[in-house]
Amino acid sequence: MTNNIIQEPQQVILPEELLLHWQGHRQLTRRVIEAFPEHELFHYSIGGMRPFSEMAIELISLAAAGIQGMVTGSWRATGELDHHAGQSLPGTKAEILRQWDLVTQEINHSWLQIPLERFQELDMAFGQYEGPIIRIMLYWVDNENHHRGQGYVYLRSLGIEPPPFWDRY
Amino acid sequence: MTNNIIQEPQQVILPEELLLHWQGHRQLTRRVIEAFPEHELFHYSIGGMRPFSEMAIELISLAAAGIQGMVTGSWRATGELDHHAGQSLPGTKAEILRQWDLVTQEINHSWLQIPLERFQELDMAFGQYEGPIIRIMLYWVDNENHHRGQGYVYLRSLGIEPPPFWDRY
Repeated sequence: MTNNIIQEPQQVILPEELLLHWQGHRQLTRRVIEAFPEHELFHYSIGGMRPFSEMAIELISLAAAGIQGMVTGSWRATGELDHHAGQSLPGTKAEILRQWDLVTQEINHSWLQIPLERFQELDMAFGQYEGPIIRIMLYWVDNENHHRGQGYVYLRSLGIEPPPFWDRY
Repeated sequence: MTNNIIQEPQQVILPEELLLHWQGHRQLTRRVIEAFPEHELFHYSIGGMRPFSEMAIELISLAAAGIQGMVTGSWRATGELDHHAGQSLPGTKAEILRQWDLVTQEINHSWLQIPLERFQELDMAFGQYEGPIIRIMLYWVDNENHHRGQGYVYLRSLGIEPPPFWDRY
């Protein structure tokens, strides 16, 4: 863009800032996964809620299907996502982190293919959520933040200091 | 804007969508506050964390100081915010909700005064966070989502069904 003398339109948020925003959240969530002891990641729960491993696996599925949908317009229905279909779910922290990192790379790679006008296009995402791409994407980033906040409570109640919320990089 | 034939530049997110995004989150957080029994709102805690009333009061302070800073460029330092200064803190759920609703109105009113180019301006927010306005604002919206997710765990562990995460309006 620095080679280009055309004035860019003023943006509320730039696509590259939005990518950093999303990946910053994912970087922090990765640290929260790491902070769990292996057993507690898969078994610890409060109030009948899911263990954090199940939330993390949901987040991996949503991010992977989400970036694919953003780029291609082809959305897997929620029932077809790995965490619902129950297929090949990671059974160790190391495997969760490995899948997490693959999605991180996929997002960085695919993001470059998203044209500016895509963010305001209407899609029926995941077979059921209709709206502009930007709203759908913010929803899954919010969903991650929401569940990660729950992971903080799990960690605190286990006597483990969570990573600082402000550290996204 | 409908009276205007000038083509608006393509936006990743429109200012009015960003307002709905923020207020949608605030509407949901309001429901979480309401879902707490009076006593538990002020006293229930897990893992040594703050009761949800203290988180809610922080969110009120940040939102009020945040919209003021966005509009005026004048930022109160974090130590001067009500929830740090300890002054006139609400002591009942009704008073928290009343203050919450005042800030809701203030945000809706003030938002109209924010010009498009403001979102990319650099400020030193709350006396310590330097960055473009959009990043600072998303940070406090994220902070609310984060703490609200913690409130969900408090509610679940109290046997109370939280309001649905997807219902923002």
